[in-house]
Amino acid sequence: MALPAQVTIVEVGPRDGFQMEKTFIPTETKVAIIDGLVRAGIRRMEVTSFVNPKVIEQMRDAEEVMRAVDRTRGVVYIGLVPNLKGAQRAIAAGVDAMKIVICPSQSYNLRNVGMTVEESLRTCEELIALGRANDVEAEVVIGLSFGCPLEGPIPEDRIVDLTGKVVAMGYSEVSIADSIGVANPSQVRRMMRRLQDGFPRVHFSLHLHNTRGLGLANVLAALDEGIDTFDSSIGGLGGSPVVVAGATGNIPTEDLVNMLNEMGLGTGIDTEGVMVASRMAQDFLGRPLPSFVLAAGTRERLFRRARERQEAQRATG
Amino acid sequence: MALPAQVTIVEVGPRDGFQMEKTFIPTETKVAIIDGLVRAGIRRMEVTSFVNPKVIEQMRDAEEVMRAVDRTRGVVYIGLVPNLKGAQRAIAAGVDAMKIVICPSQSYNLRNVGMTVEESLRTCEELIALGRANDVEAEVVIGLSFGCPLEGPIPEDRIVDLTGKVVAMGYSEVSIADSIGVANPSQVRRMMRRLQDGFPRVHFSLHLHNTRGLGLANVLAALDEGIDTFDSSIGGLGGSPVVVAGATGNIPTEDLVNMLNEMGLGTGIDTEGVMVASRMAQDFLGRPLPSFVLAAGTRERLFRRARERQEAQRATG
Repeated sequence: MALPAQVTIVEVGPRDGFQMEKTFIPTETKVAIIDGLVRAGIRRMEVTSFVNPKVIEQMRDAEEVMRAVDRTRGVVYIGLVPNLKGAQRAIAAGVDAMKIVICPSQSYNLRNVGMTVEESLRTCEELIALGRANDVEAEVVIGLSFGCPLEGPIPEDRIVDLTGKVVAMGYSEVSIADSIGVANPSQVRRMMRRLQDGFPRVHFSLHLHNTRGLGLANVLAALDEGIDTFDSSIGGLGGSPVVVAGATGNIPTEDLVNMLNEMGLGTGIDTEGVMVASRMAQDFLGRPLPSFVLAAGTRERLFRRARERQEAQRATG
Repeated sequence: MALPAQVTIVEVGPRDGFQMEKTFIPTETKVAIIDGLVRAGIRRMEVTSFVNPKVIEQMRDAEEVMRAVDRTRGVVYIGLVPNLKGAQRAIAAGVDAMKIVICPSQSYNLRNVGMTVEESLRTCEELIALGRANDVEAEVVIGLSFGCPLEGPIPEDRIVDLTGKVVAMGYSEVSIADSIGVANPSQVRRMMRRLQDGFPRVHFSLHLHNTRGLGLANVLAALDEGIDTFDSSIGGLGGSPVVVAGATGNIPTEDLVNMLNEMGLGTGIDTEGVMVASRMAQDFLGRPLPSFVLAAGTRERLFRRARERQEAQRATG
């Protein structure tokens, strides 16, 4: 199959990345990073989470962030919502889209959102109705689709079954997540082929983690199956609450954009522009972020330096 | 195309990795790591370099390393040789195979081995004759095949042309190297397809770097073209002398083995066994090595813990 000519990157750093940070990031810093990412060409972004501030204090400024960002035409500002209360806040705050996570593992779903899978499914049903009534997109993320830290392997059938249930509710955007970075390229291909064959009218995207270094290889495998939308996080910020110390989480946006741009696939995103936003986050957090391109620079920059050196030598020689 | 059922990993850490280290690694530590890798299932390994010790002091014990390793039947112990003098030392030391690097960029080749490309080609010709006379394999590595830090982009034609020249000398093993990590998956596919179409009797392998995080994605692209042999380095040790500070080099062996094993491709290598050797190197060097699996652990280990926890809960419940 031919690779998709255009690929959409969903930036999740301001939500998935920031929520893992213990030090509160001032609203203006969050907004500066979000606006910087839009200037770099990001067109879909999880900007915040409408979670109970007592649970995730970092997200206590969700409404303020939504008010302060430079709303740009054509950019979809997404809010994560854990429940209907969060959805009502998100709609009142003016998000373009809401995402809700459901996990196929009963024990993890309980731990993550305090609901059984069945309760989460009922919430999904109410959420899409609420979204329709308010003209706000709703999307389901099926977390831990490739394995669970509490239950181990998750049968593919269970993901297909859950997908079927949310599709029956009317969802047409489904994100398949490997929240703990256990998927491999063969598994990604198999899963995405099966889901796309089974639900031809649904648009699937992937949320992949880089925990075992397989993030970009898994993206490549999915591109081969025609998947054209991927989550990533500036600088590789964020991860799962159950990651091992020293392990990394999300795919760094600049690494993903760099790969796609280098392959000649259209992203509409400027790698250097993303790096400007990543450096803002890095400077604020005061530690090097786990992004390769941020550390090494782009090939283009390396070759530009080579060209300049050659020209200088010619001029002096 | 179907993926290769069996994949060979060429461990290059003891040569490419160690040579970048400033602190001398005692011969017994080197040997313990090499023997550990063989126990983990590695069957081809660059164990040392027969370079002038004045140039790379770390490799001054090349002969002692070759004498001390536990020579295992079926394992190919490879020595890197920069020139004929090195080749004579390597043969005397009893290597199974010799590798020589040639770069398609005149300026880089001069800097790397002090010879023009034409001089390097003559050395390649003498090397294969010397190898044949002594029943020692000889292999050519075409460095910087995807771009040069001094000259920038390298035309694909030049790699095809160089390959043609060494194949005409009788070489049947050619390694295509992205020594600075600038290749992308589309480029890797194109290059390997062209080389394999052009030289159907030659066995090509790939030496890929992870500088921009694309190492494993590039491996996946090459597997799709039927390439079945890849270099990697324990813990991701090593890199190019021109890498940027903070940037990484080689693909970590445990990350590569993990990907291939998880995909169900045969490697004959035990990921945990490789990690034992990586930890030896990490402990000696006293800094965390840039390997994902070394930091996060394998999926198998994560799921084993999940199973054990579930069993313990059942027993107490």
